This record gives sequence, C-alpha cells and structure tokens, in this order.
Amino acid sequence: MDDPSHVPAKGTLNITDDEIRESLEGAQLKFQRERGSDVTIFSPRASVMGHHVGNATTSLHWSEHCNELIHRVCSLYPQNFVGVCQLPQSPGVPPKNCVGELERCVKEFGFIGCNLNPDPSGGYWTDPPLSDRFWYPLYEKMVELEVPAMIHVSASCNPNFHTTCAHYLNGDTTGFMQLLTSSVFKDFPTLKFVIPHGGGAVPYHWGRYRGIAIDMKLPPLKELLLHNVFFDTCVYHQPGIDLLFKVIPHENILFASEMVGAIRSIDPETGHYFDDTKRYVDALAGFGAEKRQQLFEGNARKVYPRLNAKLGAAKAPPRK
Amino acid sequence: MDDPSHVPAKGTLNITDDEIRESLEGAQLKFQRERGSDVTIFSPRASVMGHHVGNATTSLHWSEHCNELIHRVCSLYPQNFVGVCQLPQSPGVPPKNCVGELERCVKEFGFIGCNLNPDPSGGYWTDPPLSDRFWYPLYEKMVELEVPAMIHVSASCNPNFHTTCAHYLNGDTTGFMQLLTSSVFKDFPTLKFVIPHGGGAVPYHWGRYRGIAIDMKLPPLKELLLHNVFFDTCVYHQPGIDLLFKVIPHENILFASEMVGAIRSIDPETGHYFDDTKRYVDALAGFGAEKRQQLFEGNARKVYPRLNAKLGAAKAPPRK
Repeated sequence: MDDPSHVPAKGTLNITDDEIRESLEGAQLKFQRERGSDVTIFSPRASVMGHHVGNATTSLHWSEHCNELIHRVCSLYPQNFVGVCQLPQSPGVPPKNCVGELERCVKEFGFIGCNLNPDPSGGYWTDPPLSDRFWYPLYEKMVELEVPAMIHVSASCNPNFHTTCAHYLNGDTTGFMQLLTSSVFKDFPTLKFVIPHGGGAVPYHWGRYRGIAIDMKLPPLKELLLHNVFFDTCVYHQPGIDLLFKVIPHENILFASEMVGAIRSIDPETGHYFDDTKRYVDALAGFGAEKRQQLFEGNARKVYPRLNAKLGAAKAPPRK
Repeated sequence: MDDPSHVPAKGTLNITDDEIRESLEGAQLKFQRERGSDVTIFSPRASVMGHHVGNATTSLHWSEHCNELIHRVCSLYPQNFVGVCQLPQSPGVPPKNCVGELERCVKEFGFIGCNLNPDPSGGYWTDPPLSDRFWYPLYEKMVELEVPAMIHVSASCNPNFHTTCAHYLNGDTTGFMQLLTSSVFKDFPTLKFVIPHGGGAVPYHWGRYRGIAIDMKLPPLKELLLHNVFFDTCVYHQPGIDLLFKVIPHENILFASEMVGAIRSIDPETGHYFDDTKRYVDALAGFGAEKRQQLFEGNARKVYPRLNAKLGAAKAPPRK
C-alpha cells in the first residue's frame, strides 16, 4: 500500500570484489577462454531489468545499482569487459527520464551503449512504438553521445509469453517492423540499433519484409534500414546462422552469444553448447578473413564508436 | 453508448452469387490456374475476424456471416475450395462459446477445420495461453469432430504491432512456445494444430527450441510436438523455404500460400510474386516425387482427415 510519508531510498549492495571475481571466473571469463573470444560488451542481464516492477523511482534505483555493478566488473577486468547500461524505463513514463542515467554511464563510467526496452510493461505492450516522438529525447541523447541501443525486452509478466523463447523474439520482430514503418532514421540519420537473437523472425522472413516495403512504396530495405539497424549472431544452430549470413549483408552482423543466457544445454547433435555461436560462424562456407575480421571486431567498432577509445591501441584497428 | 432496450440482430448480407464469382475469378481462381494448385482450403480472411470488435454477440453474428459466405464459395466451386471456419471468439469469453458454431460449420457445411485466435484482444494478449484449461472445451470438440485448428491471430489494434509483419509472426512463435511448455498433447493426443507463416520465428530458432526443451528436461521436440504440430510454407523467399525444409521433417509441412494475402508485390530479384511459394518448393534440392506428394496432398489429408471424404475418389489417395 502507498504510504505518503515513505521516502524511497536507493539502498546499498553488499557484493565484494571477490564475489564479483568468483562469479565471473566460473562463467563469462571461463567461456571467453574456452570459446576464444576476448572483449565482451557487457550489460546488466536483460531479463531482470524488470521495468514493469514498482514505479519510475524503483526502476531508477535498480538501474543505477545494476549499471554500477557492471562498471565495477569493467574496472576489475578492463581487458575483458566494456560496459553497456540498462535504462531506468517504466511503463507510461516518457523515455526522456532515462537521459540522465545514460549520460552518467557514458561520461562517468565510459559505457559505450545502452539496452532499450520496447515494452517496459513486460508483455502487455502498452507504451507507444519506437516510431513515436515519445522516444525522441532519448534518441537525441544517443546521437549526441554516439551510443547505439540494443532493442531488448525484459522478462515477460504476461503468462502468454515465455520470456526467452517467445517474448524476446517477438520484441526483436516487433521493433524491426516499427522502425521499417517509421521516419526515425530520416529524423536521426546516425542513430543505430542492434537487434539481438539474430533479428527474431526477420531474416527468416526477409522476403516478406522486402515485399511489404515494396507494397508500401518504401525504398529497398538496404537503403531504408541497413545504415542504422544491425543484427547479432545469437541463433543456436547451423542452419539458422547459414540463413542469417545468406540474407543479411555481413556488414550488418555483429558477433554475439548470450553467454551466459537463455539456453544452457549442450546440443546432443553436435556435442557443443547450443550458444557457442563461434562454431557456427567458423563453419560458414566462403566466409573469409576480411569478413571474419569485420564480424568479430570491425562492425562492433563501427556500431559502437566509443569502443575505439576504450580499446585504444591495445587492439588492432579495423582493416578498413 | 449502451442502450438496454437494443436487441442485437444478425442482419443480412447482400452479396449475389455473381459477385462472389467475379471476386474469385480475378483472384484466387486466377492464381490457382496460374500457379498450378487445385484445391484450396479456404477460410474467412484472418485479418478481419476482428474478435476484439464489439462483444461476443457481435463476434457470433460476424463469424456466422463470414462462414456462410465461405460455404457459398465452396458450394459454387466444390472442385476448388473446401471450407474452414473462423470462431466467434471474444476477449475474456471462454472458448466453449465457440463449440456451437464449429459444430454447425463441420456438420451442416462440411467444413474440415477452424482458425483459432490465440489473442482475441488484437495485440494486448489478455486471455489465457493455449495451455490453459480455458481452451479445453474447444479442444474436446475439435478432437470429437476430427478437425484441426490453424493458430492465427487477427488484425492488431495495438499500435506496437504491424498486423501482417509483426503480430502474425509473433502469434505463431508465441503459440508454438505455449504448446511446447504445456500438457495439451498429453491430454489430447490426437489434437492437431497448423502454425502458419512457416512457423513464425520457430524454424529459424529451432536450435533454441531444441535447447530449451533439454533445459526443461522435456522429451525431444519431435516426440513432444511433431505428432500434433504442423507448419505451412508461407515464407516468401528461397533461403527461408530452404531452412524450413532443412530443420522441420517434411511430414510436418503443409503446402500453403497466403494467396491473396499479406504481400501483393512481385519480387524484383526473381520477377515472380513473393507469395508464389510453389516456385520455392519446386527449387528445393533433393525433394523428390514422394515427398512432393506428401507436401502437396498427403500431409493435408493426414492433418485434415475430413478432406478425404470431401475430395473422395476424385483425387488420388495419399501414397502411404
């Protein structure tokens, strides 16, 4: 019940550096070593952003804690992790309320991007679509700071949607179509979004999207969206990765795994973890050294321009 | 405003047989001839089922009109069309209210299946998932009548969801995952569902679904779902169709096109209509005569057993 005399307090997290180290050594760092990746762009876990919980103050305090924890991770392991923040979104609250936390994370913590939840209600889709000017103050700040957003929902509190195997993919598909039918990139030509989980249903239905663009008398998708929209490789079988690289230009694909994420098992058909996505990429036919360099590094440097400053001369510059 | 003295009336449709003939001759019949299909399983147009409009009485009257019109089409062209009904669903109203109209369509009109809308709210997803006993009286009647349902949403009235390029695909993905996490097929071993648009995002993410089944300690998907769940071929480019047939057993795929449906354009890359799906199937590598017979006829006779009685000896029986 609401108590009008209650003053919400942010509280404190009692997590030691050793606890952080222990948590990472047995998971993300272990998988980095085993699977052959080096730097991870690391954000708070999307499924527990929990924007639908409490109110805007709850969301702000929780987001601050989560982002501060990511900052501690990145400070402990500067060679391994670069930070991306969650935003203190709340259903019905204009996203301009997120500008302060985004700016803090980028300017004070050196974060290079953010996660943007297109459905802070957690599965009831009650806020305006990404095409709406409701979102524009946030887009303005993203452009000013040169940070992209990954479009990623949080957990579903709607019993219709399984979080990782329905709501996540629906969020990706929905966000893509909202952008396709919008003038967002006319208004913000340098704004960039990453759509995770290999783009949800989008690449599998690329013909449908090319067709609807023609039906709507829009320019070809490459011209309409592909300067601004990028997909990742979180698709957990070879035929899916093969399709992704067949239909989406490799310049628009960023290497990723949900590590540690939605699917934790080993695929009995291959003997390897489902989410060990590097193996699928390594098995791509005709995917040569230059394209691999773009996928594993160059494209990320292009989409997240602040990555260059973070990694500095310690890493090879992109080849082109 | 509600007028308590108002008695809702079904009203009458003033559409002549000639108008029906004219409408079909320039569209579905023309495309059947041009693209080389013969019998179409024909339902009211999914996007105008409009279950969110008005109340349960509105939905009943509208569904009756639509189904009666389909029955007239099938009576005018018995060689070309076999009927499938829409159900008089309404948000928050138990699906058992649909049993009467389903029975009327099957027993009086000779229909062979139904379309089932997993979200009668039109994009707000406020009814229980397909796993809920809320739906069981309808499933009982489907099993008794030996009719399958296509899981298909109607138009979106939520500005977040483009109807054909987000809500449709999300409905497919969501419905599949609801079934994966349910005991529906333990309770109804002979119940059958068709998931349109090539299964939404499901085949592209087949590894994710195989993985989540393992994470949840469920049987393999083939055993868990593929006696009961079938996919169609409404995927509008060759790489998508190639993936579909690579990951889903051909016994679980039914030939379909949305003809006339979501995408009306010609693909400039091929010179053919995006939704002329037979061309993609014809181009499948190593897809021989027996598999083609199953895809184009045998599987449909298996999933819609009442099709055999309708088509009788005029059509070749399935080869096995």
